Amino acid sequence: MNSVKHLLDSISSAEALRLLSTEELPRLAQELRDFIIDIVATKEGHLGASLGVVELTIALHYIFDTPADKLIWDVGHQAYGHKILTGRKEIFNTNRQSGGISGFPKMAESEFDAFGTGHSSTSISAILGMAIASNLKGNDQKQHIAVIGDAAIASGMAFEGLNHAGVTDANILIILNDNAIGIDPSVGALKKYLTNVKKGTAKDENIFECLNFAYSGPFDGHDLDSLLSELERQKNLRGPRVMHVITTKGKGLRQAEENQVTYHAPGKFDKATGELQPKSTGNLPPKYQDVFGHTIVELARENEKIVGITPAMPTGSSLKYMMAEIPEHAFDVGIAEQHAVTMAAGMAAEGLIPFCNIYSTFLQRAYDQVIHDVALQKLPVIFCLDRAGLVGQDGATHHGVYDLAFLRCIPDLVIFAPMNEIELRNIMYTAQLGLTHPIAIRYPRGRGVLPEWRTPFEKIAMGSAQELKRGTRIAILTVGHIGNMISTLLEEMHQPEQIGHFNMRFIKPLDAQKLKAIFRSYEFIVTIENGCKIGGFGSAVLEFANDLNIGRPIKIFGIDDRFIEHGTTEELQEIAEIGKLNVKEYLTSVLNVT
Amino acid sequence: MNSVKHLLDSISSAEALRLLSTEELPRLAQELRDFIIDIVATKEGHLGASLGVVELTIALHYIFDTPADKLIWDVGHQAYGHKILTGRKEIFNTNRQSGGISGFPKMAESEFDAFGTGHSSTSISAILGMAIASNLKGNDQKQHIAVIGDAAIASGMAFEGLNHAGVTDANILIILNDNAIGIDPSVGALKKYLTNVKKGTAKDENIFECLNFAYSGPFDGHDLDSLLSELERQKNLRGPRVMHVITTKGKGLRQAEENQVTYHAPGKFDKATGELQPKSTGNLPPKYQDVFGHTIVELARENEKIVGITPAMPTGSSLKYMMAEIPEHAFDVGIAEQHAVTMAAGMAAEGLIPFCNIYSTFLQRAYDQVIHDVALQKLPVIFCLDRAGLVGQDGATHHGVYDLAFLRCIPDLVIFAPMNEIELRNIMYTAQLGLTHPIAIRYPRGRGVLPEWRTPFEKIAMGSAQELKRGTRIAILTVGHIGNMISTLLEEMHQPEQIGHFNMRFIKPLDAQKLKAIFRSYEFIVTIENGCKIGGFGSAVLEFANDLNIGRPIKIFGIDDRFIEHGTTEELQEIAEIGKLNVKEYLTSVLNVT
Repeated sequence: MNSVKHLLDSISSAEALRLLSTEELPRLAQELRDFIIDIVATKEGHLGASLGVVELTIALHYIFDTPADKLIWDVGHQAYGHKILTGRKEIFNTNRQSGGISGFPKMAESEFDAFGTGHSSTSISAILGMAIASNLKGNDQKQHIAVIGDAAIASGMAFEGLNHAGVTDANILIILNDNAIGIDPSVGALKKYLTNVKKGTAKDENIFECLNFAYSGPFDGHDLDSLLSELERQKNLRGPRVMHVITTKGKGLRQAEENQVTYHAPGKFDKATGELQPKSTGNLPPKYQDVFGHTIVELARENEKIVGITPAMPTGSSLKYMMAEIPEHAFDVGIAEQHAVTMAAGMAAEGLIPFCNIYSTFLQRAYDQVIHDVALQKLPVIFCLDRAGLVGQDGATHHGVYDLAFLRCIPDLVIFAPMNEIELRNIMYTAQLGLTHPIAIRYPRGRGVLPEWRTPFEKIAMGSAQELKRGTRIAILTVGHIGNMISTLLEEMHQPEQIGHFNMRFIKPLDAQKLKAIFRSYEFIVTIENGCKIGGFGSAVLEFANDLNIGRPIKIFGIDDRFIEHGTTEELQEIAEIGKLNVKEYLTSVLNVT
Repeated sequence: MNSVKHLLDSISSAEALRLLSTEELPRLAQELRDFIIDIVATKEGHLGASLGVVELTIALHYIFDTPADKLIWDVGHQAYGHKILTGRKEIFNTNRQSGGISGFPKMAESEFDAFGTGHSSTSISAILGMAIASNLKGNDQKQHIAVIGDAAIASGMAFEGLNHAGVTDANILIILNDNAIGIDPSVGALKKYLTNVKKGTAKDENIFECLNFAYSGPFDGHDLDSLLSELERQKNLRGPRVMHVITTKGKGLRQAEENQVTYHAPGKFDKATGELQPKSTGNLPPKYQDVFGHTIVELARENEKIVGITPAMPTGSSLKYMMAEIPEHAFDVGIAEQHAVTMAAGMAAEGLIPFCNIYSTFLQRAYDQVIHDVALQKLPVIFCLDRAGLVGQDGATHHGVYDLAFLRCIPDLVIFAPMNEIELRNIMYTAQLGLTHPIAIRYPRGRGVLPEWRTPFEKIAMGSAQELKRGTRIAILTVGHIGNMISTLLEEMHQPEQIGHFNMRFIKPLDAQKLKAIFRSYEFIVTIENGCKIGGFGSAVLEFANDLNIGRPIKIFGIDDRFIEHGTTEELQEIAEIGKLNVKEYLTSVLNVT
């Protein structure tokens, strides 16, 4: 068994891989698969996607001259094997940890990562840009490869890339990694079509040929021989091509193949048996996601106008509960944020009450639609922005930290951040009673603070803040879940009488009356938000004061003007200087000095 | 001839149209065409698109039960006939004027405008939302129609809509209005494919059938009989369908048919001959667009790393000059802002220097790509944001007023607004010398101020502001072209010695040194920007002062938190309270009172 290990150990880079004989590759595939399972079983991370492309990853680096030939992994969940084979085996156990390597391809990390990914469907555009660059530099022999899943290729951005690439003579090879699943099962007409292609029931000219690509496939993505021979052939072709490869997500670990959604990112598990490590949730508070998921079902049972929409995140957002119980009112539209938002606008125009659940970071994909299709027409779409703020291990590509800044400038849009589960429930309840404008409700990834959260619904008055604790000199204004950190801190500080705490809740409109009173009564104003400092909530308070001609410095705790990497949420909050210690230090200094 | 006029005069709504006999419809078509030409010839507006769909517009309202059946015009340039036939004939001469009707469909304007449009490719998502709403309300007889052009349907968002709609049983009829041109000629693989369909050289199963749509066509969009009979057939069909209609943009006016780009929005012309009214440009300053267009050619002649990219706006942006002279370095990627930005990122990663020219309002479509693909990787893409600020007659959907707010929160992105032609040239020159970060250069629609603008290139230091006039008490800080308004105002006020004027140029990074000096030397700080007040340049100055613990109110002139409609730019600036009179009033009051 030791000699088996030695094969992978010898692969310190793609060059070393290319020294192996083709006969050794199946053994390498097994080792690579085992290595991925070993590490992810204890360190956590994305499992299924990388297991599915083990053979493809080896074949690509074996045939092509990486990193000279360019290789982009769309989204990047599937790039663990790629990282391990390109010099990062020894540090792979730091994956997604603070200071460790990123869970996604990253240009700064390796020359083999031709382009950073994280969000879906960028690879075709990026690889086309690179291929055109090669042509302009007179290097028309170089190959440019994008590996993209069937869920990702159905996103609009990918289509835009295909539509352009098809009329160029760029050397690009799009490898369609077709496993019929993204994080959740793929949906949509293209998926249905690809199924027909696989079954041989689609007609002769396929959709990629319609778009002027040379199409080949489908190939068995776990058959190394067939991959090697087709890639060898592709290596000598030029122009835009699509190679259709069929893979099984989670390949090689029975449970991961059978429960592909769960094993997308399974947390810790037993590497031998594949069994998930049981998580004791005991009397823990629920995840905000589940509060959303159960509450929309509860509301939709009573209000038949309610519909739920998710762009490809039924599990992550917990809209899956509604999809199971009231399927005709709950829609997974695929990786299609733009479509999700404008479809919601169309529904609202016809009197439905759409809850459009999108991760904060992915709403960046539908920004124009929020402005142009929703807010400009004052359509009462209810946006639930999941994973707002720092998200932890997914890192820089996934933090939802810009939403307050980019939404705040949109007229007629209300922005709310619940401090806890009950506020999330109550604002959802309030919103579906009937609004005359859209609302964005932002909440973080993970658990709230209230194990007993299923309380009777209560209406929340628009633009109303809450005084949580009265003080004499320092007013701390918070929005959202981070307010609990302040409550805890004040408790630890034995509720200093000088410090007041206000749960502002609404980033827009601000509670003008309460804010005026705060400015009158307090000497120091402190704002705290889990979001970027520029243009965010603190900035809103500053603008408010300025409009009232109040010239007073405000201490703003928000994320500074830089990208934050990956780590635990707690680590990142300290790094971003919005953590408990940062605030405590400030408060102590004010209390001591003055 | 009088009786001919009477036919159109009798059509006060779609119901009246449906009372006509089919034999009368060709006459109505002629009248409608003449009416559009008559009005646009003197009032200006979008001509070609509406002339192309005269027969289709009549046929749709004749066959379908509008407004109960839903009808959405994608983009909406082509909806003049629709507006005239649905009760807006008498006020059509107010089109695009302040207080008049909008140049685009608008829900608030008429129940026949099922959904407001302006930006491209939203119609399929919106109509699908409406069709699903009808199904949920138990009304499965209702029809839902989207008319979308071949340029618009190639945008990613449209594909997302098709991909979802294809697997639903929604009653939607997508009418593909195929005239092979958007504002400029259509591009891309889909366009090429559609040409094959028209020629009969595409194979049996077409791309829409691949996506599970029932396809019919192509039909001659100027043959009323054929349109009526196919729409009558469609009226009784259910589920998702595509009807492919071939039209000629500008149909019925020879010059408009022959010069489709020019006659998209030709300005004033002779309605009898079609001749354009000659515009005396004399010694007028150039348009910023042309400064961009000529300067990039000038730079690219010397620097072979430069590439230019436009998403479907070669004429509007003036990239057409580079496309003509250095075609292999200049790319029209179609209506595909997302792709444009990420392709630029791919090019920059390979050492090219991409100038990515996008209208400010359309960059909203590629917001995620700016953050995730460009800024996060510090790729030195040069964004040229055309039509920033209030754009005039195109109105609420097209104002580029949010860019400063939504870009300012992005780390590592420099934001610059040239005050005049020379600053635009010089920042373009500076940027292509080689940056280590991306930059956004925003400039307005229309003319600058310097007839003699082709001066030798000079480098601009990053983050450097300019003192234009020294003062003793009031410092006016401006960014961009609107600074000229202040210069003019100060001239009119005989250069009051109390007032200083600073051309800040960089919204990010701010010139910290100069700003500190200004805060030390001046009693009153005034900021002026052609953009939204929330989160914009004024807000940046406020944040800057706050960070320095300077508590001083700042007078911020920016667009208040509401959508601004259409009118001339001058009218809109006064409405938005960022006009010369608004500033003058403020300055006078400060000077008089204190």
